[in-house]
Amino acid sequence: MVARGEVDGAPDARGRKPSRKRQTRRAQVLEVAARMFHERGYQTTTTQEIGAELGLLKGSIYYYISSKEDLLFELIEQYHEETRGYFEAIVGSDRPPVAKIRELIITSTAHTARHLSRSSLFYTEWRALSEERQQVILAERERHEKALISWIAQAQADGDVRADVDPKLTALAIFGMVNSVYRWFRPDGRRSAEEVGEAFCALAVDGLLVH
Amino acid sequence: MVARGEVDGAPDARGRKPSRKRQTRRAQVLEVAARMFHERGYQTTTTQEIGAELGLLKGSIYYYISSKEDLLFELIEQYHEETRGYFEAIVGSDRPPVAKIRELIITSTAHTARHLSRSSLFYTEWRALSEERQQVILAERERHEKALISWIAQAQADGDVRADVDPKLTALAIFGMVNSVYRWFRPDGRRSAEEVGEAFCALAVDGLLVH
Repeated sequence: MVARGEVDGAPDARGRKPSRKRQTRRAQVLEVAARMFHERGYQTTTTQEIGAELGLLKGSIYYYISSKEDLLFELIEQYHEETRGYFEAIVGSDRPPVAKIRELIITSTAHTARHLSRSSLFYTEWRALSEERQQVILAERERHEKALISWIAQAQADGDVRADVDPKLTALAIFGMVNSVYRWFRPDGRRSAEEVGEAFCALAVDGLLVH
Repeated sequence: MVARGEVDGAPDARGRKPSRKRQTRRAQVLEVAARMFHERGYQTTTTQEIGAELGLLKGSIYYYISSKEDLLFELIEQYHEETRGYFEAIVGSDRPPVAKIRELIITSTAHTARHLSRSSLFYTEWRALSEERQQVILAERERHEKALISWIAQAQADGDVRADVDPKLTALAIFGMVNSVYRWFRPDGRRSAEEVGEAFCALAVDGLLVH
């Protein structure tokens, strides 16, 4: 696994502080890998091709990374790292459950749309990770799912959400909708990431019908 | 490409009628391939492994199929073939647009849940098909999308659906939700395919809130 210190500039296990140049280069390797895995698929992209895209000599990409699977895992982890920021803020707020539900849908849809390549990797390249690493990522997803389920149940108890909806099934439907954005969203399209988030939220919370 | 005649028992291009035994064996090859591609991924499953699972001698699987990509394409095509049945019935009915929207969500969610391995192949193994074959499948998906968009727009004109929803964005959200079912649905779970369809429909059409 790639040591966390290599990412944030902290000393590595042997007490070496990575050079600024190496850190910059490493970030470039991750960016290029994200784009190539997304566009061409993880299985068919080689570390050598990623290195070549950056003008690296054959084999020297291993100065920055340990293996292709490490790259994939780190990209997905980076994505989750970023989701933690907004997720904890919503969890910690004292707003009513329906407001939390709305905010989670809007924010996570927009976040998925803004990070197309990294978010797509989770769904399309899932199987390529080791069992142990799949568990790490699954645990993170489960936290989000459980939070949404509990907000739906609380909102039912408050009388705001219909008593006949199944909180778990509804949470799965909402995440299915939110996470599908990476399949079609284009940054230069007619709708911004936030507008898509607002529209998805309106559909799931308010429904289609005129009341 | 695999000739259609080999599937339904009609004579092939050279006028040969496939034997019953060969047809049965061919259907088994497709079933096993669907399961193995779904469980282990298309890239990492070989035709030899599919043959071995059926007790076929090395290489003799090519008596039933032409290539691994043919298998994948045919499995996705079989799935679409089945969707055409319910889709045309909804398109051809004279029910109001909101009823068509409800029926499409319920039926296609249940259909996806009932055909987990084939439906998952479309999303997870998409890239493995040739450009030309991707186009065939995209065209079919586009027909469904256009129909749903037009029903939402008609329902808006009738005053049944809120004027502020974007028909295209809503259709994408609905298909995203419907198609995500393959990721978690289990045939032996606490909800049937139809119940999941009803729940998804209620969420998208009626929303969460008490009115």
